[in-house]
Amino acid sequence: MASVTVYGPPLSTAVSRVLACLLEKDIQFQLVPVDMAKGQHKSPDFLKIQPFGQVPAFRDESTTLFESRAICRYICDQYADRGNQMLMGRKEGGLVERYWVEQWLEAESQSFNTPSSTLLLQLALAPRMGLKQDPALIEQSEGKLAKVLDVYEQRLGESRFLAGDEFTLADLSHLPNSHYLVNATDRGGLITSRENVGRWWEEISLRESWKKVVEMQQAKAPPS
Amino acid sequence: MASVTVYGPPLSTAVSRVLACLLEKDIQFQLVPVDMAKGQHKSPDFLKIQPFGQVPAFRDESTTLFESRAICRYICDQYADRGNQMLMGRKEGGLVERYWVEQWLEAESQSFNTPSSTLLLQLALAPRMGLKQDPALIEQSEGKLAKVLDVYEQRLGESRFLAGDEFTLADLSHLPNSHYLVNATDRGGLITSRENVGRWWEEISLRESWKKVVEMQQAKAPPS
Repeated sequence: MASVTVYGPPLSTAVSRVLACLLEKDIQFQLVPVDMAKGQHKSPDFLKIQPFGQVPAFRDESTTLFESRAICRYICDQYADRGNQMLMGRKEGGLVERYWVEQWLEAESQSFNTPSSTLLLQLALAPRMGLKQDPALIEQSEGKLAKVLDVYEQRLGESRFLAGDEFTLADLSHLPNSHYLVNATDRGGLITSRENVGRWWEEISLRESWKKVVEMQQAKAPPS
Repeated sequence: MASVTVYGPPLSTAVSRVLACLLEKDIQFQLVPVDMAKGQHKSPDFLKIQPFGQVPAFRDESTTLFESRAICRYICDQYADRGNQMLMGRKEGGLVERYWVEQWLEAESQSFNTPSSTLLLQLALAPRMGLKQDPALIEQSEGKLAKVLDVYEQRLGESRFLAGDEFTLADLSHLPNSHYLVNATDRGGLITSRENVGRWWEEISLRESWKKVVEMQQAKAPPS
């Protein structure tokens, strides 16, 4: 039996980030559904392992963790010799390469995540939930995301992936939001119309790990 | 001469996070001012080391990095044997303790940072810059921050610091925004009125490293 357990629905962007990382590292895991519509993420038992009442939560033997990017870092270090061993930079690249990964992982977390998450909420989720869209917020977020992607466009003209010549956690961490932006909104062109970003997106979205996550999402998706 | 250089004004919250980390680690550094009012952070030379045109940028010998939390992680690992050696968890605590630090550092980055930064912009900066405040946004951010601090209140009832019994990078990373919230707005009570959070704030804000950062900020502050 797998010692690793992920709690949360694969449709969640943060959950799917952790799943992609586990699949890259070739680590078996158990996925425990958390029915957010029924408020299971706010239950006392769940709050013991995720006090903010968010997904995912994560367990490895007796260690529990929350926050998807912290969980991914843990997986990479705890299982350094398993599966893809480049996710935190090549071993021979030492600390410098590790911190190039950290730098672009933080760029995702600080610069890419907020405007892309806002666009997903406004363009993909709000209509399904019968909520009113905020056109000013959509325009503002699109502008912010475009500026971030302009920096990525330049960077990805210099190197194949964000942190260098290898696919790392920095690239992986962009998959969940980018996937929905391209496949569930009409603003995918923000990514696909930029030459280098589009080339990068095509490469990272075709990784076996991510294709498997998308299959898990589709198996759980509500009928459209 | 110091091999480490930080580019940016100490009044910036992200710059001051890096300065506090360097002071905890007892590492000499050179601080190079970046005059943001004159747009120096958008100059071609600066964009070479910080392509988003934000502060801080960081150099150690020939390595350059951006993103304050990535820089702090680099400092802790690159100078593991210098100064405070607990910032990423006690050595004997191994990976598990390191990832408790990561987990709460991510909580700061994902949950605490946005509502506290918004409050600082709205309550402290907007009036000075003659910008109109947004009362709905202030109320929304205050509500979000209160919920985050309720989780901290419970956590800090169980342990002296966020990640355990030692002051770590997770605590340090909260200093910049908390300092301005307490000292430059009328909403400091969000922090000081909570028993455990208030006790924690008093302890972390009195660290020699942070007092030195505040001195550096006051030396650079515009006349009030």
